[in-house]
Amino acid sequence: MEKWRTSRRLLSYSSKNLFDRQAYPNFENSNYLSGSGFTYHFGRICKPFKPVLHHKQNLPTYVYTLRDCINCLRSPLERFNGNTCRVQHRYFGSMATKTQRNPMFATINSDDISHFKEILGEKNVIQDEERLLTANTDWMGKYKGSSKLLLQPRSTEEVSQILKYCNSRCLAVVPQGGNTGLVGGSVPVFDEVIINLGSMNNIISFDKVSGILVCEAGCILENLVSFLDNEGFIMPLDLGAKGSCQIGGNVSTNAGGLRLVRYGSLHGNVLGLEAVLANGTMLDILGTLRKDNTGYDLKHLFIGSEGSLGIVTKVSILTPPKLSSVNLAFLACKDYFSCQNLLLEAKRKLGEILSAFEFLDGHSMDLVLNHLEGARNPLPPSMHKFYVLIETTGSDESYDKEKLEAFLLRSMEGGLISDGVLAQDINQASSFWRIREGIAEALTKAGAVYKYDLSLPVDKMYDLVEEMRIRLGPAAKVVGFGHIGDGNLHLNISIPQYDDAILAQIEPFVYEWTSKHRGSISAEHGLGLMKANKIYYSKSPETVQVMASIKKMLDPNRILNPYKVIPPSLIF
Amino acid sequence: MEKWRTSRRLLSYSSKNLFDRQAYPNFENSNYLSGSGFTYHFGRICKPFKPVLHHKQNLPTYVYTLRDCINCLRSPLERFNGNTCRVQHRYFGSMATKTQRNPMFATINSDDISHFKEILGEKNVIQDEERLLTANTDWMGKYKGSSKLLLQPRSTEEVSQILKYCNSRCLAVVPQGGNTGLVGGSVPVFDEVIINLGSMNNIISFDKVSGILVCEAGCILENLVSFLDNEGFIMPLDLGAKGSCQIGGNVSTNAGGLRLVRYGSLHGNVLGLEAVLANGTMLDILGTLRKDNTGYDLKHLFIGSEGSLGIVTKVSILTPPKLSSVNLAFLACKDYFSCQNLLLEAKRKLGEILSAFEFLDGHSMDLVLNHLEGARNPLPPSMHKFYVLIETTGSDESYDKEKLEAFLLRSMEGGLISDGVLAQDINQASSFWRIREGIAEALTKAGAVYKYDLSLPVDKMYDLVEEMRIRLGPAAKVVGFGHIGDGNLHLNISIPQYDDAILAQIEPFVYEWTSKHRGSISAEHGLGLMKANKIYYSKSPETVQVMASIKKMLDPNRILNPYKVIPPSLIF
Repeated sequence: MEKWRTSRRLLSYSSKNLFDRQAYPNFENSNYLSGSGFTYHFGRICKPFKPVLHHKQNLPTYVYTLRDCINCLRSPLERFNGNTCRVQHRYFGSMATKTQRNPMFATINSDDISHFKEILGEKNVIQDEERLLTANTDWMGKYKGSSKLLLQPRSTEEVSQILKYCNSRCLAVVPQGGNTGLVGGSVPVFDEVIINLGSMNNIISFDKVSGILVCEAGCILENLVSFLDNEGFIMPLDLGAKGSCQIGGNVSTNAGGLRLVRYGSLHGNVLGLEAVLANGTMLDILGTLRKDNTGYDLKHLFIGSEGSLGIVTKVSILTPPKLSSVNLAFLACKDYFSCQNLLLEAKRKLGEILSAFEFLDGHSMDLVLNHLEGARNPLPPSMHKFYVLIETTGSDESYDKEKLEAFLLRSMEGGLISDGVLAQDINQASSFWRIREGIAEALTKAGAVYKYDLSLPVDKMYDLVEEMRIRLGPAAKVVGFGHIGDGNLHLNISIPQYDDAILAQIEPFVYEWTSKHRGSISAEHGLGLMKANKIYYSKSPETVQVMASIKKMLDPNRILNPYKVIPPSLIF
Repeated sequence: MEKWRTSRRLLSYSSKNLFDRQAYPNFENSNYLSGSGFTYHFGRICKPFKPVLHHKQNLPTYVYTLRDCINCLRSPLERFNGNTCRVQHRYFGSMATKTQRNPMFATINSDDISHFKEILGEKNVIQDEERLLTANTDWMGKYKGSSKLLLQPRSTEEVSQILKYCNSRCLAVVPQGGNTGLVGGSVPVFDEVIINLGSMNNIISFDKVSGILVCEAGCILENLVSFLDNEGFIMPLDLGAKGSCQIGGNVSTNAGGLRLVRYGSLHGNVLGLEAVLANGTMLDILGTLRKDNTGYDLKHLFIGSEGSLGIVTKVSILTPPKLSSVNLAFLACKDYFSCQNLLLEAKRKLGEILSAFEFLDGHSMDLVLNHLEGARNPLPPSMHKFYVLIETTGSDESYDKEKLEAFLLRSMEGGLISDGVLAQDINQASSFWRIREGIAEALTKAGAVYKYDLSLPVDKMYDLVEEMRIRLGPAAKVVGFGHIGDGNLHLNISIPQYDDAILAQIEPFVYEWTSKHRGSISAEHGLGLMKANKIYYSKSPETVQVMASIKKMLDPNRILNPYKVIPPSLIF
């Protein structure tokens, strides 16, 4: 009888459950805090925040500014002391990391400036302090370099000339796109020359039949999204930072984002690219073919290597057609095992239209209800242990809707779902997403929080949350949520205030646990400066050694984005 | 009125148009010749043919044996003359290629044999002539080496020990899986030691929630397909050679096949692998994660490098859930432009269920009707200029069927389709596929044929066919067909008998044309020995130079699969 009532609820809710985000103009300005660390927003261009800087004895400290990427917040505490860059990762709980400036690198002189002005013209050689301050500082105000020079090339040839010269002079460089990275990869560590690709922002071609877009690296993701929207296509990746981040940066960091569960990673979607090597060689691997087995597929070396092997200057990317029908269900499961089985069934029964499968535990829901204004549980009062959001995106509204309804009914009858509702309209859908995406905000309101963004085998994922709960006892609230469909867990530990004794119980345990289960300590953000020395938690020494060899081969003077990705001790 | 009638035909045919290949047992033994060069068959394990060898003065020549991969047939003419391997590619029309044995390489001696027996045990060190003959000869009987030693390791550690020793002795090796490659990549060129992975055929794990399979490299694709079938999953690739080919070989050659249009390439589906480098280093990058941004993604170096950078020993692969509903439509279009637009619309309207989009021109249909026994045009008598097959695969029979019908009706009303029928049952479906897949057989029956397997931008693809037609005049019949959904053209030139004057008109024009349009001279078969020296048609000198540097770095003694992929002149 209960089952029947539950099923009825699903069905009665579903009578008007279709919605199309694009169709609701009043939704265009909505910004929600994403559990993935990115803002899940609809349509509006999102500008990066400007850090608030307080100069004191020329050593700036940072006032933390809460913004979109709240789930990935880290401590702004950062100090510069002569040639040592000391970074404390309080939010992420990592131990302090010391990096020494490599004395091999030359420092900029007036001849260098003159040479760059010859190549780029006066106005593209930036020495203005205010502009340099912005370019030296990362999106979160956590990392800051002290570069004296920002270059803005307008073509691949100019990038090539810059690198050729820097290589000959042993001047270190940092490639920069929208500077929205989260691991200190896109700003100088010391005085590296900043090469910003923002002026290379032309769309070169779009083939409507194949859906293949070719563009320069400096194209802002949001602009590509708008361009494709007019053509009836979408980008295969969607990030909260899309209003600022550039496609070259996305490719260089192998950005993940919200569409990965459906369209896969950039390694599958990027068909080709053009990159400039450290010595200025222009590498044209800008293929526009889905099939090409002529030699080693070198483009993959530049996808996710965070600008340390070459500067990506152009990209060719396969874009999927835009589909119009979107549905969203908010469901309760009695245990994590049911969540896993529901995922399995959803892949099988909804496989071709499944576009999101997110989960949160009861503790996360509790936090949201207690700390997030206006949030309410869409399901009746009783708390459940787990909640799941299933989103489908397809080409035909009525068929997709019926398919989802039938699936939910079967899953409920089979006991995989304890309860559930289908969004009737865009407002209901947004209130469902608000719960999942509001967890991070609720956590910060609840007090201090240690945050970890991990990839783990789906069946092991929640074990870590439970082990951590036992390990820390009642002193901390341990919550787990994330992209279960991608195997990406957001493990968050909420405590009234930061406590080094608790941190010592969390780390290195969390990294060791992740490593033991062959997980990744960086699911989607990369290593950058922050985690370069933590690479061994996810990669074997032999593998890191091969990476270092490739780095040395392609960049013998190590001028490209030094101190990042690979442990500096291996390559200097 | 005509439109109405046509639409009616579609609808009346569609009343029983659903079929499920798996559900028809009498179809299990059907083998059709695939236009992609692979057999598209349902269920039955397909064994490789054994070449018929005629020995004469110890210099074997080959009697050509017609078999599955008829679209990729090449001349069996091959001669060995001392240390020179001369290969004539008559069917593919390529110029003869001379390769010299590299004198750097040592030759096997009795100490080596003893050492290998210590590592592997007596029975896994093969010197038997008959077994060596098979292992020395490629699937098509086109390439033949003269190796005196075949090793059969049973573990990664054994592969490591073999390579460590071979590297120290400068003994060249050729890794071998199912030996189903089509470009001479999997057999020795001279006396390289053959390392066959067939004994490493264990499934290590399968995660039903994530669909991630981990297995040893020697697992036969068909066996993995059967294993997954029981679990409700499929492999993301399907090849005619699946009864023999091994997953390690598939990964090493970045095999394409029939599911690429739906599931993408192995670069997107392989999550991790284990490989042994030339010096014996075991590289563990066997991740099972969808998201992992910790350093350079080295696995991609081994996907498609044809065993020249390392020997793949284990593979982790993301497998899609098995879907039950399949539909097939056979359609006519008035011009190539309509085919392109139909593809565009199909991607948009059927995007999530589209599983094949193949095309053939009227000349191809003409050949099939004239030369293929029992073949008939499913559409009324009038010949059309182009034909398209659209297959959908989804999770729900009734929804998918309705969706396809609605799409076809709209496309017909919009003028994209001139006529069309939907398969009512498995027999009709197989008769439709018989036309597309029978083109290659019809071509061989019609006389001599020059064949090219090219990747080209979809909008340019058919221009090459038309230019070739004008170029060759009435002396040759030029036909075009292929995987338009993947941008993969099969260009075939049919003439009564081979004619060097005509060949000279075809080549190098066809390669130059492909190169000019940034196409690929090897869409899915790789370069191997056959096309190593033709790499520059598809890759820039700078790109090839980087490939060569990577090869030299990872394999300083060049022992791994020498003479292949990279032009030997660059690496020796």
